[in-house]
Order: sequence, then structure tokens, then C-alpha cells
Amino acid sequence: MAKVLTPKEEDYSQWYNDLVLKADLAENSSVRGCMVIKPYGYAIWEKIQQTLDRMFKETGHVNAYFPLFIPKSFLSKEASHVEGFAKECAVITHYRLKNSSDGKGVIVDPEAKLEEELIVRPTSETIIWNTYKNWIQSYRDLPLLINQWANVVRWEMRTRLFLRTAEFLWQEGHTAHATKEEAMEEALKMIDVYKTFAENTLAIPVIQGRKTENERFAGALETYTIEAMMQDGKALQSGTSHFLGQNFAKAFDVKFLNSKGELEYVWATSWGVSTRLIGAVIMTHSDNHGLVLPPQIAPLQVIIIPIYKSETERQQVLDYGKDILHELKHHGISVKFDDRDTHKPGWKFAEYELKGVPIRVAIGPKDIENKQVEIARRDTLDKFYVSRDTLIEQIKSLLNEIQQNIFKKALNFRNNNTYEITHIDELKSNIENGGFFVAYWEGTKEDEKLLNEQTKATIRCILPEESSSTGKCIISGKETKKRVIIAKAY
Amino acid sequence: MAKVLTPKEEDYSQWYNDLVLKADLAENSSVRGCMVIKPYGYAIWEKIQQTLDRMFKETGHVNAYFPLFIPKSFLSKEASHVEGFAKECAVITHYRLKNSSDGKGVIVDPEAKLEEELIVRPTSETIIWNTYKNWIQSYRDLPLLINQWANVVRWEMRTRLFLRTAEFLWQEGHTAHATKEEAMEEALKMIDVYKTFAENTLAIPVIQGRKTENERFAGALETYTIEAMMQDGKALQSGTSHFLGQNFAKAFDVKFLNSKGELEYVWATSWGVSTRLIGAVIMTHSDNHGLVLPPQIAPLQVIIIPIYKSETERQQVLDYGKDILHELKHHGISVKFDDRDTHKPGWKFAEYELKGVPIRVAIGPKDIENKQVEIARRDTLDKFYVSRDTLIEQIKSLLNEIQQNIFKKALNFRNNNTYEITHIDELKSNIENGGFFVAYWEGTKEDEKLLNEQTKATIRCILPEESSSTGKCIISGKETKKRVIIAKAY
Repeated sequence: MAKVLTPKEEDYSQWYNDLVLKADLAENSSVRGCMVIKPYGYAIWEKIQQTLDRMFKETGHVNAYFPLFIPKSFLSKEASHVEGFAKECAVITHYRLKNSSDGKGVIVDPEAKLEEELIVRPTSETIIWNTYKNWIQSYRDLPLLINQWANVVRWEMRTRLFLRTAEFLWQEGHTAHATKEEAMEEALKMIDVYKTFAENTLAIPVIQGRKTENERFAGALETYTIEAMMQDGKALQSGTSHFLGQNFAKAFDVKFLNSKGELEYVWATSWGVSTRLIGAVIMTHSDNHGLVLPPQIAPLQVIIIPIYKSETERQQVLDYGKDILHELKHHGISVKFDDRDTHKPGWKFAEYELKGVPIRVAIGPKDIENKQVEIARRDTLDKFYVSRDTLIEQIKSLLNEIQQNIFKKALNFRNNNTYEITHIDELKSNIENGGFFVAYWEGTKEDEKLLNEQTKATIRCILPEESSSTGKCIISGKETKKRVIIAKAY
Repeated sequence: MAKVLTPKEEDYSQWYNDLVLKADLAENSSVRGCMVIKPYGYAIWEKIQQTLDRMFKETGHVNAYFPLFIPKSFLSKEASHVEGFAKECAVITHYRLKNSSDGKGVIVDPEAKLEEELIVRPTSETIIWNTYKNWIQSYRDLPLLINQWANVVRWEMRTRLFLRTAEFLWQEGHTAHATKEEAMEEALKMIDVYKTFAENTLAIPVIQGRKTENERFAGALETYTIEAMMQDGKALQSGTSHFLGQNFAKAFDVKFLNSKGELEYVWATSWGVSTRLIGAVIMTHSDNHGLVLPPQIAPLQVIIIPIYKSETERQQVLDYGKDILHELKHHGISVKFDDRDTHKPGWKFAEYELKGVPIRVAIGPKDIENKQVEIARRDTLDKFYVSRDTLIEQIKSLLNEIQQNIFKKALNFRNNNTYEITHIDELKSNIENGGFFVAYWEGTKEDEKLLNEQTKATIRCILPEESSSTGKCIISGKETKKRVIIAKAY
């Protein structure tokens, strides 16, 4: 099979696009900025959903569903929120079409104009807090720990499959609490859940920190983030958790009677991850042969491919292979036996390499004779023989090993591309090559804008404060304990 | 606890509304016609999704995701389709808001007008067939067996929680086939899947048949349906599967090379069920005490309630109860131990009755002494003692028994309210009391409209043809084998 992907060293961005399309993950639709998530891509999303949903439930959350539409006036109620979202939203103004007078199709019926326009949710804080108002009277009604799996729309001008699309799928948690401390604890707990998920399930090492004021979610007092490094050295914000203070409670007048009988505003958090995570997985692990998927979210963990020449051989390898298939299934491993005779083994090898199936099992007549199979690891591309007797156990441990190996590889890559800097010039001369730059920071909002203008990089997060060491801010020169990660970002 | 529900004999419609609200299933939102599905209602939807999704996958389908928005022109491409959906759709005309000049909120930015308006999907045939065009070249690309879990919007004027809302959640299957026979087989297979699901999982007996031309899906050549009888004798269409012929393939020019090398249009089906099923569950099984949930979709199958007076007693029943809790959990039963001391047992009894938890286990000091528990069945409201030794096994078999019992009860109700009629006068004089009326039918479209005008009832479905018997059509008098179900419907 000819190389189907542009090598990433040649054109990283093209490599990514090629990969998303050729591996059948997603494609652009006829609707500007909206993608079609194809079955193979959606299967990865389903795996992500299953694991996250279980983690949310284990931490006490339940799912619910709120309206797709938000009255325009709701958006205006929280000042910085509307500022952040009004400029990129889909607006519904009418509720009916009618036949055009020339008989050539349909037109918007001018008589079916809405009194108040509706916005397709870009995020659901406003509609949810307007609902919570009726659900919360007393401290006994708190906390509310609710999550929603939904589609949202942000009218992005420049879109890229999975990374930035007008419509995307996500989950958004929206919680309500009686105290500031409890809300803060929740916001931190959920960024921890995201970190654990990213590292253990997606095998993506992430740096956890909080956003600067400039980079905070519109309406948040504090935004916590996990930031991952892609193979081109750019950062990808992979999940955020917001401490919203009482902003939305005040905007929607949500008060509760505390245990002393006093009326107080409710404290809030929200947190979300999206189909963007699929983009993160692709860009963290894959190579010029195609996808490399972490076994934990691979729709297919093992592919079995038979190799034969004669019909007799075919029968033998099919029998041998089917036994392996059933045994692996029985052990809860997601496996397929590709016994199609319409495609050659070589074609299949390349196809499943492209699709990132972690383990390939090839079986030919010789293997049956020797009571073995040939195994190929997708992550290292190593090939070796494994005895049929110990095959199942070896595949199980190999899946674990691959999961850990690709995490370590990504972690090494990040470590090798993370630089401590003490002067902004170091950033300027190296930022083009990508990487994370760790620096002391005590600048203003304006300093941060300047930094961005001069380097095209942004402060990805403020690291959790370390106890003793201090240093000089790379812009203001002020002595500070605060350290930040600076990088170019998606 | 005072009666919280209007008795259904008094006002069925009010009973339903009371129940949806008081059992915390859903509520109306601030957006006209859109509902909020509350956590308890959503938990039922999750159970429905899990089972259906498994059934879809077992029948060879995969999930994918297509855009929320449909270009207006797509809708016009299939003539009867646009006729069916244009009158009730949400239309996006702009993609940006801006600050109003008076500084009081935001207005639609007139400069951000879309060249072509977008429709929020009322169903996805058009956007999906526009996509399939690029996926299908040869017979080797067929069949495509794809399902989507999504939200859709139909601008309904009169809405009722779960039964008819502007936005609702559903799944829509969209399949593409090389032959008419295969597409027809698929359409029938999926209505069978729905019937099995309705009867085995939701415990709702349904009648399966096909729709008359008047009642077909806009764009279908044949619509298969399952119809359930609610406790007021009205029909609820609970799932449909459409044989679309080549209509959408022609509208979107989707052709394939068949094995003889000839170009042909592709054959299509689509099929869907929605959150309406939750309304069907409520209205089929529940009573004046509240919900009655089939154990297979009950978010909580067993509730344990401790009864005690002193602190010593409390400790004893808590220990005793927790053992039961853990044992039931270990056996995969969804169970909660409500040991809150903020509420009295009587309050809890009423609460879980309202919520339709199939089995209640009450434990007091006497029960510990006698090595037993008190069990109450939600479906029959019977109470009895069960020995602690055999408790787990008894609960397991009781859950099965309840599932079967409520199905039988609903089936008996339907049978007792189904009438064979030979003249339209029998329909006219009895339709007000509800029920299914089985009649021979060989009328025209106009006859059917007349029937509807005179009786407010509709033909719910044409029954699968029976071999030998014939009879006279109740309107035209023509001799026919064709029999239909006539009923008032939701």
C-alpha cells in the first residue's frame, strides 16, 4: 500500500487532516464548520463517554437534559458571559418555512417570526441556572451535582476536525453548593477527574493548573485546566473546570435558606470536556503509518488476520483463528477476525495499522504447526512470535504494556520539550520550534497581551504554587513564587 | 402524606401531568415547548438507551453523528418530505449578536446574516443522504447500517411533557441497501426489534402493523409502526420504521455500481424511537399512587427503608440493612438504602411509591428477631414477609414476576378494550370511551379523512394480512382481507 499520509515532519497540519480522513474518523459536512463523526470516530467517543460517565457517577453526579435553545435575554444576564459568547452563536429568528411564490422550494415565512430570538446553546450555564432557581430553596436542596451530555454550537470562523468545529459534542457538569469552600472543592475534584482520565485512559500526560484572568471562562472566577502537549510541541487545552462563585446565582437570582435561616446566593461550578479529546488522542500518539490508539479506548483492541494459499490452508487457519477469536471475546477483549477473502493480508496489515488497532495477530499454516501466532504491536511496530498456550494472557498483559508505553513515550516527549526560561528572549528565539516554556510570572493583563503579540504564545496555565523557590517575572522582573507554562496552542 | 396526584379516573390528562412533575421526571422550561428532563427521568432514558443500543449493535448497526443543522435547500429536495416538516421547524438566519446601541443587552447583528438559512434538524434523512452520496460508490460499500442518538426539533404548537415537545431526544437509524428486498427486510427487522424492546423491556404490549398512505412518514413508501394502548384507551404510536424506497437516493443522487457493473439508485430505510417512550411507560403502568416502573428500566429496583425508635434499634437495623444492600448490589440489583433520619418511614414509603420503585424492603427490630424482612410490591401493593435466608433469590424472582405481571395486566387491559366492529356507527357510539376498534377497511384517502372528521379517530395501522377471512369495509362496503385498528391517538 502506498503511503496515504503526508509525513508529519513535512506538514504536521496536513498529516493530521489526512489521518482523520483516511482513518475514517470524521469529515467536513455540507454545513459550514460542522463535522460528520463517522462510525470509527464515534466508537472512540463512545468509549470516552462510558469511562467518564462512570467516573462522574462514582463522584456522586447524575445526568439530566436541558433545552438546546436559550432565550437571547438569558445570555445578557451575566455580563462577562455574554461578552464571551454573543459573537459566535447561531440565532433562531423564525419557526416556519413556506412554499416560495415561484414554486421553486421553500422560504422563511415572515409571519413566523419569534418574539424573542433563541440562541443555540454555546454552553448551558444560563438556561441551567434559570432552571435551578426553581429547584433550590433551602440548604437541604444542595448540593446539586448534575451533568449533561449534549451538543453545543459556537460559530467558529476557522475550524478543524475535532479540534475546533461549529457544532461539537461534549459533557457539561453544572453544580450548585451552599458554600464557597464546597464549590471550590468540587471544581478542583473535577479537574482531578479529568487529569486521571486523560492520563490513565487516554494515555495523555497533562499539566494541571489554573488560567490567568485573560484566559478564564466567560463568567468564571477561576478556571482550572489540563494542558497536553501535541507532537508539534503545541499545547491543547483538554478539559476545564470553573469555579463560578455566585455570578450565575446573582444573575438568575438563585438564593437558598441556609441552616441559620438566612438567605444566601448559591455557589456554582461548571466543567466540561468535548470531542476535542479525540483530536488530542490522535495528535499525541499517532505516527506516519496512521493512528496509534490507547488500548483502553480502541474500538478494536486486537485484529486477527489469516494467511493462507490453498483452500485446505484456509480452512485450517480459519478454525485456528476462530478459536482465538472466541477465547479473546470471552476474556472481554474487543477483537475482530478479518477473514474476508476480498483483500490480501498486506492490505489488511496496512489498513489496521492506519486505524491504530493496538495488537495484530497473524496466523499462517506454519504458525499452526509450531503452535504459535505472530504478534505485531502497533505502538512499537515490533513483531514476534507467541506460543498459542500463553497467548491470551500475553495479549492481556501486552494491552496494558502498550497503554503504559504510549503514556511514557508522550511523557518523555513532553519532558524533552519543556524548557525553564528566565528571560523573554529565550521564548522569542525558541517558540517557533514548539514546546512548553516554564517561567516565573507576575505580569499584568497588559503584559500578557504583549507577550502574546510578540510571540504568538499564550500562558496556558499557572502552576500550582510551589512552597519555597522564587524567581523574577520574565516580563515585569518582579520577584514571585508564581510559575506559568507558556506555549503556542490549538 | 396527602394525595399528590389528581386521580386518573377524574382527569386522566391532569393525572399524567401531576405524575411527571411530582415524580421528578421532567418539567417545562422557559423555552416554549422545550422540556427539562430531570435526573430521575433521564435515568430511565439511560436505561432505554443502553438496552436499545445493545440490540442495534447485535443486529449489525454502528453509531455515528451528523450535523444538527440542515441547509434549507436540502429540505426541498424530497417533495413530500419538505411538505411534512417545513411548517414546524426552527430556522437559523444569523450567526452573531452584538451590543444594542442603548446598552441594554444584545441584539441580532444584521450584518451577520447567513446566505442560506439553516434548519435545526427535525429528522436527518436529508443531511445523511447528502453525506452517503460520498460514501457509496459500489455494492461493496453496502449495506450501510448506521444509527444516531440525537436531539431533534419540531415546532409543535401544543406540547405535552415527553409525548410531544418541540425538542426531544431520540435515535434515528438510517440504512442504505443494494436491493429493494434487503431494504424491506431491514425495515421489518427494526420494527421487530422495537416490538421486542417495548414488550420485553418496557412491558408494554404493542400492535405491529403498517400505516395507511395518509399516516406515512413524509418521504416513505411504507411506514411500519408499533401502537400501544394507554390506560385511557387512546393509542400511542411508540416507534416507526420506514421503507423509503429510492426516494432519498434520487433526491440526493446516490447511485452505486452493482455487481454487474450497472449504476443503480440506493435503497433506504429509517427508523426511530424517542423520549416519548417514557410517556408510554408512565401511561401504561402507573396508578393513583404514582409511577409503576418495569424493573428492567427502573433506575432503582429495590429501596430499603429502616424502621426504629431508639438509637440501639437504629444501629441494629442499619447493620442488618447494610448487609442486605451489599448483597443485592453484589447480585447486580440496583438498590438504595434510605437511612436518612430527616424523614419518617411513612413519608419514605409514599415517596418511593410515587417514584415507582418496584420492590420496597422495610426492616424493623422485630424483623431482625424473626430473621425476615417486610416486602411491598409496587405493582400489586401487596405486602408480605420473606425470610432473610432466601431474600436475595426471592427478590430476583420477584423482579421478574413484576416485569411479567405488569405486561400481562397491560395486555389484559388492551384485550378488554379492543372491539371488533362491522359498522361505522359502532365506532361513533363507542369511541368516546376509548379503545381499539378492529374493522375491515378498503376505503380511499378521502374515506379516511371522513372517518377522522366524524369520529376524531384515526387508522393507527393496517394489521398484517390474515390468510382466509374477508369482510366488508366499514365505509365503502367493499369485501376485503385488510383489517385496521382505529383509535383516538396521542
